[in-house]
Amino acid sequence: MSFFKDIPSVAYEGPETSNDFAYRHYDPDAQVAGRRMEDHLRFAVAYWHSFAWEGGDPFGGRTFDRPWFGSTMDHARTKADVAFEMFRILGQPFFCFHDADARPEVESYAENTKNLEAITDYIGGKMEETGTRLLWGTANLFSHRRFMSGASTNPDPDVFAYAAATIKANMDATRKLNGENYVLWGGREGYETLLNTDLGREADQMARMLSMVVDYKHKTGFKGTILVEPKPQEPTKHQYDYDVAACYAFLKRYGLEDEVKLNIEQGHAILAGHTFEHEVALAMSLGVFGSIDMNRNDYQSGWDTDQFPNNVPEVAMVYYEILKAGGFQTGGTNFDSKLRRQSLDPEDLILAHVGAMDVCAQGLKAAAAMLEDGSLEAARRERYAGWDSDRGKKLMSSSLEEITEMVLSEDLQPEPRSGRQERLENLVNRFVQKA
Amino acid sequence: MSFFKDIPSVAYEGPETSNDFAYRHYDPDAQVAGRRMEDHLRFAVAYWHSFAWEGGDPFGGRTFDRPWFGSTMDHARTKADVAFEMFRILGQPFFCFHDADARPEVESYAENTKNLEAITDYIGGKMEETGTRLLWGTANLFSHRRFMSGASTNPDPDVFAYAAATIKANMDATRKLNGENYVLWGGREGYETLLNTDLGREADQMARMLSMVVDYKHKTGFKGTILVEPKPQEPTKHQYDYDVAACYAFLKRYGLEDEVKLNIEQGHAILAGHTFEHEVALAMSLGVFGSIDMNRNDYQSGWDTDQFPNNVPEVAMVYYEILKAGGFQTGGTNFDSKLRRQSLDPEDLILAHVGAMDVCAQGLKAAAAMLEDGSLEAARRERYAGWDSDRGKKLMSSSLEEITEMVLSEDLQPEPRSGRQERLENLVNRFVQKA
Amino acid sequence: MSFFKDIPSVAYEGPETSNDFAYRHYDPDAQVAGRRMEDHLRFAVAYWHSFAWEGGDPFGGRTFDRPWFGSTMDHARTKADVAFEMFRILGQPFFCFHDADARPEVESYAENTKNLEAITDYIGGKMEETGTRLLWGTANLFSHRRFMSGASTNPDPDVFAYAAATIKANMDATRKLNGENYVLWGGREGYETLLNTDLGREADQMARMLSMVVDYKHKTGFKGTILVEPKPQEPTKHQYDYDVAACYAFLKRYGLEDEVKLNIEQGHAILAGHTFEHEVALAMSLGVFGSIDMNRNDYQSGWDTDQFPNNVPEVAMVYYEILKAGGFQTGGTNFDSKLRRQSLDPEDLILAHVGAMDVCAQGLKAAAAMLEDGSLEAARRERYAGWDSDRGKKLMSSSLEEITEMVLSEDLQPEPRSGRQERLENLVNRFVQKA
Amino acid sequence: MSFFKDIPSVAYEGPETSNDFAYRHYDPDAQVAGRRMEDHLRFAVAYWHSFAWEGGDPFGGRTFDRPWFGSTMDHARTKADVAFEMFRILGQPFFCFHDADARPEVESYAENTKNLEAITDYIGGKMEETGTRLLWGTANLFSHRRFMSGASTNPDPDVFAYAAATIKANMDATRKLNGENYVLWGGREGYETLLNTDLGREADQMARMLSMVVDYKHKTGFKGTILVEPKPQEPTKHQYDYDVAACYAFLKRYGLEDEVKLNIEQGHAILAGHTFEHEVALAMSLGVFGSIDMNRNDYQSGWDTDQFPNNVPEVAMVYYEILKAGGFQTGGTNFDSKLRRQSLDPEDLILAHVGAMDVCAQGLKAAAAMLEDGSLEAARRERYAGWDSDRGKKLMSSSLEEITEMVLSEDLQPEPRSGRQERLENLVNRFVQKA
Repeated sequence: MSFFKDIPSVAYEGPETSNDFAYRHYDPDAQVAGRRMEDHLRFAVAYWHSFAWEGGDPFGGRTFDRPWFGSTMDHARTKADVAFEMFRILGQPFFCFHDADARPEVESYAENTKNLEAITDYIGGKMEETGTRLLWGTANLFSHRRFMSGASTNPDPDVFAYAAATIKANMDATRKLNGENYVLWGGREGYETLLNTDLGREADQMARMLSMVVDYKHKTGFKGTILVEPKPQEPTKHQYDYDVAACYAFLKRYGLEDEVKLNIEQGHAILAGHTFEHEVALAMSLGVFGSIDMNRNDYQSGWDTDQFPNNVPEVAMVYYEILKAGGFQTGGTNFDSKLRRQSLDPEDLILAHVGAMDVCAQGLKAAAAMLEDGSLEAARRERYAGWDSDRGKKLMSSSLEEITEMVLSEDLQPEPRSGRQERLENLVNRFVQKA
Repeated sequence: MSFFKDIPSVAYEGPETSNDFAYRHYDPDAQVAGRRMEDHLRFAVAYWHSFAWEGGDPFGGRTFDRPWFGSTMDHARTKADVAFEMFRILGQPFFCFHDADARPEVESYAENTKNLEAITDYIGGKMEETGTRLLWGTANLFSHRRFMSGASTNPDPDVFAYAAATIKANMDATRKLNGENYVLWGGREGYETLLNTDLGREADQMARMLSMVVDYKHKTGFKGTILVEPKPQEPTKHQYDYDVAACYAFLKRYGLEDEVKLNIEQGHAILAGHTFEHEVALAMSLGVFGSIDMNRNDYQSGWDTDQFPNNVPEVAMVYYEILKAGGFQTGGTNFDSKLRRQSLDPEDLILAHVGAMDVCAQGLKAAAAMLEDGSLEAARRERYAGWDSDRGKKLMSSSLEEITEMVLSEDLQPEPRSGRQERLENLVNRFVQKA
Repeated sequence: MSFFKDIPSVAYEGPETSNDFAYRHYDPDAQVAGRRMEDHLRFAVAYWHSFAWEGGDPFGGRTFDRPWFGSTMDHARTKADVAFEMFRILGQPFFCFHDADARPEVESYAENTKNLEAITDYIGGKMEETGTRLLWGTANLFSHRRFMSGASTNPDPDVFAYAAATIKANMDATRKLNGENYVLWGGREGYETLLNTDLGREADQMARMLSMVVDYKHKTGFKGTILVEPKPQEPTKHQYDYDVAACYAFLKRYGLEDEVKLNIEQGHAILAGHTFEHEVALAMSLGVFGSIDMNRNDYQSGWDTDQFPNNVPEVAMVYYEILKAGGFQTGGTNFDSKLRRQSLDPEDLILAHVGAMDVCAQGLKAAAAMLEDGSLEAARRERYAGWDSDRGKKLMSSSLEEITEMVLSEDLQPEPRSGRQERLENLVNRFVQKA
Repeated sequence: MSFFKDIPSVAYEGPETSNDFAYRHYDPDAQVAGRRMEDHLRFAVAYWHSFAWEGGDPFGGRTFDRPWFGSTMDHARTKADVAFEMFRILGQPFFCFHDADARPEVESYAENTKNLEAITDYIGGKMEETGTRLLWGTANLFSHRRFMSGASTNPDPDVFAYAAATIKANMDATRKLNGENYVLWGGREGYETLLNTDLGREADQMARMLSMVVDYKHKTGFKGTILVEPKPQEPTKHQYDYDVAACYAFLKRYGLEDEVKLNIEQGHAILAGHTFEHEVALAMSLGVFGSIDMNRNDYQSGWDTDQFPNNVPEVAMVYYEILKAGGFQTGGTNFDSKLRRQSLDPEDLILAHVGAMDVCAQGLKAAAAMLEDGSLEAARRERYAGWDSDRGKKLMSSSLEEITEMVLSEDLQPEPRSGRQERLENLVNRFVQKA
């Protein structure tokens, strides 16, 4: 394969190496908290950012110069060849893709589906050869103009129909490739203006689509997890799957909370006003955590910058929440990250992943060390210890009147106790800074 | 009463008057959409901002010079005298208050409750004299240091107990004064750092408190509505009642969605990344709309500025959603708005309300005119008309496979239709600019 | 011309008309504050948004279907034909354009320039026929990949050279078409990461380019104003012309503050954390105000939404600042606004402008009425009156020691006075709501 | 001293220590890049946050329980005793203070000044005993209600006078204590509403005040640096010293750019939409860098959270800019950071500083290692190398016409080169993650 020319396979060489094309921290076979590092992190490359995105932004067009840019099936196969070459160089265990990343997009559903079948057969062959697996498949229901006013939430039932058929084709492809999850991101399921929008109808439409997806999963025996992905806005002004809480509200309202889980992204968390670890911890506490899209948003930019992660302390807190809850099940760490549009060279694509994988590996090791140390969890438990006492338990099953009696009879005047935030932050830094 | 000196009662004089102390648009007895304007808007003064707030901010202390600032019951009665004098001047039909606005705050629950009973007896007398009613009562569970780490979500069960007893006292007072609602704002129900927080426990504690409140309501025969109030953050880094969707998720999770409704504030909507009308429309569509806190946040400031409303187009869209859904039931328009801290004069307090009431009255009239005109709703219905056809209905009860069959057999290629946003915005402007 | 089919010319019909294709407030010949409304507002259509933008966003491609999309000179002429047809329908006195909006963009400078000359000859003919004038011309130095790392601030001097030559061609074209201004927007003059950036060098490069532009203006006898345009970010992470203050700092540093003025946009002001009226008032007070780009950003979206203006109170405050300072000189009101990508129909393009022009006309009338009334300016003057007294003047020329002496000898204890914000807001609302 | 009870002195023990009250990275005498670590970092404690702030926020009052809270000179002396005890425990070389932190604030200027003289005599004695030095002094011109509408920019000249006299008293105190800088933070120099504001007058007033300060510095022979401090807003809606660019614009406009430098704070940078390293690098490139206020803002909160720093990668980039430009002159690292209001214990105050000092020490070491390594600077130089060639130099002194000739004659078609952002980020991570 000539695209990556003489870039060698990337292997673990330890922190002191001077080789750019080496892992300093990611050592797939190293044991961390009872599992191989690779099995913890379950890295996946995002086909769209790495191979389909052309480097455009709202003020400029394509900057990348790739031999596979074009809209024929030949281009699609070249793209797949390069992708699997990159997976091999990096030793990536997983990838993720939308239909529109992998095959040309045309008007006819029949032709789109035929091409999807053909390219996924081709990709399937490569998976078998290389051992790379599919973390998840998904349908692109947001780029084509037919979806401009929504896919499942479109005011035109025909678009809903087209979207439904497209999802079926993608679920079929994902099942064929033994995907471990199937994702729905509702990039157009929201609105530009309330003035032309009926929130009630659109919620019902979206719920109907999701119910059909769940039904089809069971009917076909697909073993993967169905995931939806929170994002508050962009491209829409308001996206219905705003954040973890909004997704949970929706799932619970329509009785889908046991069937569907969440794929959570750092950039989307930030756009919604949350930290990534908040969204992960909340999903865990609601029983709907599924997988993560690992990237980084620029805190000074108000849009989804999808940069490769580079801040170990931030990443560590996310893996801490994940490890604490037992690690990934079917989910993994998908790099939903794209090169900056000025990073033109094939090397940039490799090095961006190398750096990101090392950052995640450091974060994971720090998280594991914190958990093993146990001080942080001990402090948390100690803080709530009163609730585990008989008094605490009794309070949770009393009435307002009974409690008032108690407050009066004891002349209760509770004295606040330090929340000890800074010392907990110091504690965390001991681990995240020497990982 | 000498505080407002010779400020006259404010009456409707119409748009052309040159009198500052007159309503140009708010005419309580005028009929709008089948009700008196006063009965539509149900204005309420917020006791805390207008009478308890001293003009401080994070970088400076008290600027206002009020004869009732002080912590004795005499000060409390003077404050009530001035408040009712202002209600009279403005012709305000309602007010709202926290316990801590109305009586001194001390350490002892017994004494706080005794003082609350005394001052609400005093206030009750004034209500009887003047006809001013209580829109809602509430407990301040956020200002005293005992609540610094939460009220119902505190890690210390004794604080939960103190909060529960305080809520009971406030519900009793609200029932005594025939309040039309009882509100819970969880200003400290959230966290400063996830590091010391157990999200799961705190959610259970919060739900337990709310369930006790609902039980107590039914036990005591209180007829008002129980309201919770979304806000994403401030003073906390993260507040559990983040926005309408998060509140609904919580209520639904704990089976409280039929018992509890929402009090929605513009400023809080903005801090959460939403428009006010979005939050109101969403609450309507979920069946949990209750009441509104009317104010305005500065879009360039990242904190809750709580300014008096002054933008008619914005206000009109909120009343449009409310009118469309049938208007307020037990809810109303509470001015959760405070003077700027440089607005020192008694006149400023009156004029701020006069301006705000006029803005709301214009908004209401515009909203009523739009609804009566009907073009906006007709355009919306027309946009979704396909879903009311047999084809649309059938799609909503088909499976992925059936729909795929249809797409294939018809070679369906849906053509997008204009969303017509700009012309709908023009339409709205015809009404909001001549109200 | 068939694109706009049977859409009639839009004329003033007054507020009560039921015709969508009529002005309710914009009456070009009506006198406002001593000038024709048209001469005050000096409306211009932005060629790029209305004719070159295809409806794409970061998650989706072209939605519009226009006969002139394509990259030949024939397409370019068709585009010009439609543009001038729209100017005629709307009665637009001005337009603005970049080279890349008007002619195909290729690699060769010579060919780009030849095509620019040809299309501006064609456009010049149409201008003569119709009387539409050029508010400003400008070069697109941000869309082509050659400019991805900056135009004047590029680390590669050859890109600087290409940019310089392109500016020359555009200045020549602007002069040929009697443009009233020449604008430079530095969409790529900034950085994605400080790690690869030399701020000092880039500032010097940018200043050198601007100095050459000023020199060339004088050499060629161009009478228009040279304008730069503040924007804080997007597409870059940081743009050097961040806001009015940053532009002024730059101009002053390099001695260009008397030669160059600013083109200020609402959306850019908002992204920089300012109100539009702040940026205009600041530019006025610094002597660098030039022109405005009139649009509206969505306050909940963190990117440049470039919507048509629709909030009269906001627009009024901007025209107030402009009128107060004497109105536009060579500047005008350029609608740097684009249709929402779902607004597909030719009618949408017309109606968006009609609505926006009416909003501006109302804002202008309100501003003129406020100025004529004089109460707002009287209140402002009164607030600072102390500084016009002898005491105030003496203070401005005393030393710290002399002033300290005075404070001590008088035992000065200044008493704060009300800032009266709410009553001033009420005052403004009297005008902006009945305009 | 009993406040810190049995908390021991904090000393360097290295990364592996299990002692909370030890430095893991801050080793004052260790050599880094040719200087002692203490002499590089020049840490200072902020008297206000650590000793004067009571734990209040906009929704709640005092949470801390400190023996020195009160408004007598006895309280002030107790406060100073505790402060110097903390400086001793931590081994802090510097502190900073406002007059209002150190002595009671009353109405009379004479009495305020007398008390300031007395307390600074007392503090001076302690400085002599302990060797702790004053990094900077400053006047609090924002907390008292007399300054609610500005200090130097007040519409009332008498407030300007009071402020001027207060500055003189503080400059005298700072000189007496051998302060290395004198700071002006214009917390009220801005506006709440443009409606009552005259930007032009206020700028002139602010410049006059600053000129008097500079004059007085020279007259009295004060050797320290005069610093102003950028902040965009809060408590005001708009603060004139918005960011580094705005401050430079102001200084340059009034000819003060050689006399006054900037004190830059991370939290303020973030509120203005910048990174901390941007603001530092910009100030360096403009020749106005002075000192830093080290803290951290919560990226999800829209106000100034002033937290102790805890993210080493962020801090490293700031020290990198400082080291690259030669390190601090009179400036230093002031912890303008406050405990969270739930951090009640004396230990919290110590540990917050210990953690912060370690984070800065790690950042410094990483920065020094990056500079020594040289790869980052080599990459930057290489990127701009074309400008150092004869061709580059010639371009900087050509005209638009000459350059156009060249572009045409060469048929110049510059090819973009990769910006290599991700590999530079990887490079940085090698250093910031093993510091």
